[in-house]
Amino acid sequence: MKIEILTLFPAMFDGYLDESIMRRAQERGQLAVQMHNIRDYAAGKHRITDDPPYGGGGGMVLKPEPLFGAVEAIERAADTPVILLSPQGRPFTQAIAQELSQYPHLILLCGRYEGVDERVRQHLVTDEISIGDYVLTGGELAAMVIVDAVTRLLPDVLGAAGAADNDSHATGLLEGSHYTKPATFREWAVPDVLRSGHAAKIAQWRRQGALRRTWERRPEMLLTAVLSEEDKWFLQELAGD
Amino acid sequence: MKIEILTLFPAMFDGYLDESIMRRAQERGQLAVQMHNIRDYAAGKHRITDDPPYGGGGGMVLKPEPLFGAVEAIERAADTPVILLSPQGRPFTQAIAQELSQYPHLILLCGRYEGVDERVRQHLVTDEISIGDYVLTGGELAAMVIVDAVTRLLPDVLGAAGAADNDSHATGLLEGSHYTKPATFREWAVPDVLRSGHAAKIAQWRRQGALRRTWERRPEMLLTAVLSEEDKWFLQELAGD
Repeated sequence: MKIEILTLFPAMFDGYLDESIMRRAQERGQLAVQMHNIRDYAAGKHRITDDPPYGGGGGMVLKPEPLFGAVEAIERAADTPVILLSPQGRPFTQAIAQELSQYPHLILLCGRYEGVDERVRQHLVTDEISIGDYVLTGGELAAMVIVDAVTRLLPDVLGAAGAADNDSHATGLLEGSHYTKPATFREWAVPDVLRSGHAAKIAQWRRQGALRRTWERRPEMLLTAVLSEEDKWFLQELAGD
Repeated sequence: MKIEILTLFPAMFDGYLDESIMRRAQERGQLAVQMHNIRDYAAGKHRITDDPPYGGGGGMVLKPEPLFGAVEAIERAADTPVILLSPQGRPFTQAIAQELSQYPHLILLCGRYEGVDERVRQHLVTDEISIGDYVLTGGELAAMVIVDAVTRLLPDVLGAAGAADNDSHATGLLEGSHYTKPATFREWAVPDVLRSGHAAKIAQWRRQGALRRTWERRPEMLLTAVLSEEDKWFLQELAGD
């Protein structure tokens, strides 16, 4: 997977991409990230990348020429996604992470300030994604989120095979509780069932914990989760409480 | 605002916090970020911070002792939020960013691997936040999102007074289009109204653009947005098309 990131602040990515799983994926050749500074594609001595909006109002708008120039300088296939990170995009989900992980090449364009000139949205990008309903100073963290979520889905990036399959949001449910040593920390003990060695009971306890947590915290997720008959009986019991 | 971040990977934050608005807010004393390496609070020669889960299954779970140790070493008020970043948390929104920006002190605890020992959730943290319905390799990007979203709301952090007020999600609507120079880029011209100098028409064009974009992309947001009678007429026209 090759990901190219267009930003005014390439150095923002230094720390995150140089650690842990992102670093390892790059060392192993599973991920290649290439940064492009939008300023390098701006014209003139001052390499201006933003200007006040037509019609007045506060803030600055990213000019079209450097963004078109930066994207068009990248060799890419006709179907390579060119994704603008912006609060107006489609909300990012695990399903979109799965979708993007199938491409060999992604181009991520980080918005800033009041946003990008509308002609970028209309004539340059092929997709627009938001990581959530909150306001950030720019698209850089959103780009990191996409790089992270997509990279961990690539073959052999995570250690244990299938380690990504049971995560919250991968199953359509929130995960339930996990415990590790010590068996008793302060006065709080690990639930007996987890130390019983009884695999079927442990699996049931975990499934019910995931269902209960989802029911309590994000009941709307149950509308789209894949549920067995046993899951439905358990949820009816919860609802009857 | 002082934000303390507990993580196994403090270096992940280097680039992001050292650039642009986050750097300036720190230089001006509006934001102080202190990193704490969870590993420093782990016991023994090997300073082990994670262990396999009780009951089997893949992945590793963050042990309780280092996390309790790290949080309890921080001098804090009784009402200081201790926030676990995890996919099981309440979904982060602009309203939560506003809420958190009122505190002088926040503690952010970054989960990793399969998650944290449940006793951390039950007895140590006071809040649990998720930045979206997707899976990341850890809570570090979520912590950066919170730092960014909260910092830009602090007094005098953004340049122009009120610059944060018109953003997407701050008004309950998505923002509409922005244009800047050049007036014509390739064959695409800026809409005439924006160059008319007619302030009321420009304001109406922008409001209707925000309403139209929200209607097209995120209609559910209209259920909670604050709408004038004129907004409602405009939306009825859209719906009638």
